[in-house]
Amino acid sequence: MATIFTKIVNGEIPCYKIAEDDRFFAFLDINPMTKGHTLVIPKTEKDYIFDLDEATYSALMLFAKKVAHAIEKAIPCKRIGVAVIGLEVPHAHVHLIPINQESDMNFKNPKLKLSVEEMNEIAEHIRQKIG
Amino acid sequence: MATIFTKIVNGEIPCYKIAEDDRFFAFLDINPMTKGHTLVIPKTEKDYIFDLDEATYSALMLFAKKVAHAIEKAIPCKRIGVAVIGLEVPHAHVHLIPINQESDMNFKNPKLKLSVEEMNEIAEHIRQKIG
Repeated sequence: MATIFTKIVNGEIPCYKIAEDDRFFAFLDINPMTKGHTLVIPKTEKDYIFDLDEATYSALMLFAKKVAHAIEKAIPCKRIGVAVIGLEVPHAHVHLIPINQESDMNFKNPKLKLSVEEMNEIAEHIRQKIG
Repeated sequence: MATIFTKIVNGEIPCYKIAEDDRFFAFLDINPMTKGHTLVIPKTEKDYIFDLDEATYSALMLFAKKVAHAIEKAIPCKRIGVAVIGLEVPHAHVHLIPINQESDMNFKNPKLKLSVEEMNEIAEHIRQKIG
């Protein structure tokens, strides 16, 4: 069965899309820890990021770097934090999280409640900064 | 002034070394969140991971992948979590954290207190699994 992320890639589940190429896809986390919190995934379903072949893994991380630079241009923050946990959805995903302090990376924090309009605006700002 | 990580690379500050090549270095985090918590760094001092050039960044992430596989062979865990925060030491570093649940990635958790003997034993176990 397709993962929820594959359904997002296929357009079966809507998302706030940030970037896409033939192999990778980036979209806003629907339960953001901070404004601009983005997920970067390979289009191929692979549960564990370190099980990706070297070429795909490398290209995924470079795609994430490009997206991170766009986020930091669009969202006021000290830098973009990175997290890969992956115990919930069996489809590798890299969290890119605009942070100002270490505690912004705490996954136990209450998630932001943003309106559809706010999410659309954030996504649009980031998309405009993609090189 | 050299960062604390450069002093570790240069042997001026002791560490529990895991792996090293001409460009990268891996060693146990002295304040581990879980047993086997490892830091992977480039030998060159660059504060922000996304400011590394593409080749160095890619190679760093591939080096981290190799170390992650060794850790997961040495330390019982579901998988290796990844975190890059980098607000404290101005020298890019990738946390590799053996996790069994999402909360193992919470940097607010009290750090483990392990003896020198335990740290040496963990480092030795991981080193034996480096391919």
